[in-house]
Amino acid sequence: MELSNRITHLTPGGSDGWEVFYKARALKTAGEPVTELTIGEHDIRTHPSILDAMHVSAKGGHTGYAAVPGTQALREAVATRIQTRTGVATGAENILITPGGQAALYAAFNAICDEGDTALFIDPYYATYPGTIRGIGGVPQAIPAYPRNGFQPRAEDIEEHAKGATSLLINTPNNPTGAVYTRDTLQAIADTCIANDLWLISDEVYDTQVWDGSHLSPRALPNMADRTLVVGSMSKSHAMTGSRVGWVCGPADAIEHLINLATHTTYGVPGYIQDAALFALGEGTPLEDVVSAPFSRRRKITEDLLAKQNIVKGCPISGAMYAMLDVRATGLSGQDFANALLDEHLIATMPGESFGTAAAGHVRVAMTIDDETYTSALQTLLDFAKDKAS
Amino acid sequence: MELSNRITHLTPGGSDGWEVFYKARALKTAGEPVTELTIGEHDIRTHPSILDAMHVSAKGGHTGYAAVPGTQALREAVATRIQTRTGVATGAENILITPGGQAALYAAFNAICDEGDTALFIDPYYATYPGTIRGIGGVPQAIPAYPRNGFQPRAEDIEEHAKGATSLLINTPNNPTGAVYTRDTLQAIADTCIANDLWLISDEVYDTQVWDGSHLSPRALPNMADRTLVVGSMSKSHAMTGSRVGWVCGPADAIEHLINLATHTTYGVPGYIQDAALFALGEGTPLEDVVSAPFSRRRKITEDLLAKQNIVKGCPISGAMYAMLDVRATGLSGQDFANALLDEHLIATMPGESFGTAAAGHVRVAMTIDDETYTSALQTLLDFAKDKAS
Repeated sequence: MELSNRITHLTPGGSDGWEVFYKARALKTAGEPVTELTIGEHDIRTHPSILDAMHVSAKGGHTGYAAVPGTQALREAVATRIQTRTGVATGAENILITPGGQAALYAAFNAICDEGDTALFIDPYYATYPGTIRGIGGVPQAIPAYPRNGFQPRAEDIEEHAKGATSLLINTPNNPTGAVYTRDTLQAIADTCIANDLWLISDEVYDTQVWDGSHLSPRALPNMADRTLVVGSMSKSHAMTGSRVGWVCGPADAIEHLINLATHTTYGVPGYIQDAALFALGEGTPLEDVVSAPFSRRRKITEDLLAKQNIVKGCPISGAMYAMLDVRATGLSGQDFANALLDEHLIATMPGESFGTAAAGHVRVAMTIDDETYTSALQTLLDFAKDKAS
Repeated sequence: MELSNRITHLTPGGSDGWEVFYKARALKTAGEPVTELTIGEHDIRTHPSILDAMHVSAKGGHTGYAAVPGTQALREAVATRIQTRTGVATGAENILITPGGQAALYAAFNAICDEGDTALFIDPYYATYPGTIRGIGGVPQAIPAYPRNGFQPRAEDIEEHAKGATSLLINTPNNPTGAVYTRDTLQAIADTCIANDLWLISDEVYDTQVWDGSHLSPRALPNMADRTLVVGSMSKSHAMTGSRVGWVCGPADAIEHLINLATHTTYGVPGYIQDAALFALGEGTPLEDVVSAPFSRRRKITEDLLAKQNIVKGCPISGAMYAMLDVRATGLSGQDFANALLDEHLIATMPGESFGTAAAGHVRVAMTIDDETYTSALQTLLDFAKDKAS
């Protein structure tokens, strides 16, 4: 029986640079002591107080269908949080609660992209971006952001592909590069969106992880609130990755239609999970700081170790839980470097090539293991690079 | 800013028969003592033992990303349950765990329906069916199942629209009619699917609620397993509506692609919810019987009350939690009957017209309130009908 073109062409065949990841997982499953610096998942679990709040809600009877748009209380809490952080007037009517950030991204594209529409996104990119666009029948078009610019995208590169496109997707703080887009970068992006009548989808799931500068939501720039859909999530900010709770924030009429979409795609998010998220947001920045602190520490470790050598060049680690390391001085591709490092030292990293083409010759290191093991693994990586370069 | 055609045309404008429902909700919110016989939600909550299992899992650390296809244990448990109940060889590779039955239905259509493909479904129908098809760019085409046939669809009516169609969606036990499709009906459907090379999507979320005859999964009929996608859920069988956990069961290659789709649409289901579902399935039929027992009792109440009068005709309530009542002898449409019943007696039912055209002149009663109140409300409905008919 024939499957749909949409689903069979969701991801392209051939190598996508994820072979190292799968090889590492297989080795680990086989019992090898692999150090995984691959995935964006905290080495802490969801805080027990959040889980207790969830249990109280469930035992209290919040186990039936929750309102499809999200509970009024959580929609209001998310709106308040966004308004406080960005200064943009935001109410419950601007918020759809979704089962996670990925579902929010998928919903956002559904709202603005028809079959055959071109959707722009920045390379290097999070793995699901092009498939999400193809999944709703759109045509993904990557715009490179170069290492020489600290992976900040340039308006002229976006402009080149903007004609005839419908939307642009950006992500700041950025996975995989660790870049935090500057006000200049974001203003140039906003100008380009306005000039070309593009929707902007702004993935801000790392908004609590900023080590240098500050996070600016492009929705806060003049004339952008009406053309911006912000994707947010409790996953990274509150170590609630497995709970699948996130949101789309956007114009009320778009949210109205997105609620209708949610009725047909997911039919809401568990009420007790929403109550847990409400509790977590109520804990404010102290809880967010506890969750982000390990990455802040490991970013310092990374910068200190990098400063002691001159083979591997670090890109500015301004935000998020990753370090993008330039290993071109070794003469190896990111993929060859990652493969050899795994083979020789059982340390798994992600080749830059697995995030597109712009980060070729790099490897991404997720700072998601305990400080001591992380320090030792990174030192091994640097020694390995030195060895290869000589 | 322009939204996509897909999202703005998800549901048609104009009356859809749901005005009574919204009016009832508004009255209730305003403090009126409305008796709601509208929605398919149990009057019991999720069993505490299931919620305790969830809390143990969460506190035990199952709060990170769960495997996108579902946990191996839950996929195996669902496969075993299906194999036991249907006799069809089923393994974990045939199962994708989804955040609820609606998400399973949406995923199933994504797997087999491209932009512009015609997707057949049976009228009367569950409210989200046509929107789900439109939501992935398909063209919904309703096939009537007539009251005079006990709402069993006939092969000749399907055949009439089968040429050029890609798929047929059925639901047995049926919402809204309470019909359980017979072996003859299902074999005729299977023959039509094979003759016209149609995929069959079989929504079996009410498979534990059968009062008359027995549930037969069409996937178990000869040569059907390769062209059938079964939609299942813990919602109705285990009173876990709010937990949003369900599945698609189908050919392994379809599931393989559906896993890829899930990576881009939802990124999995909370691990602790999956562990709770695993616990619930492990309790076996005794727990399912506890959950279905109230509807079995109220079905008896309904049939006894109907037998004492001759204005309102009942359709056979063979399964599910609904009674579809023929009120044509009153001379009123279902919509007018439901509106007047709400206005005069504060009892809310769903007009048959809200489920398409085939159940015009009917109202659907959800047997989802306590026995005593249910008995009294139904008696009022019957007296009201008698009054209108005279």
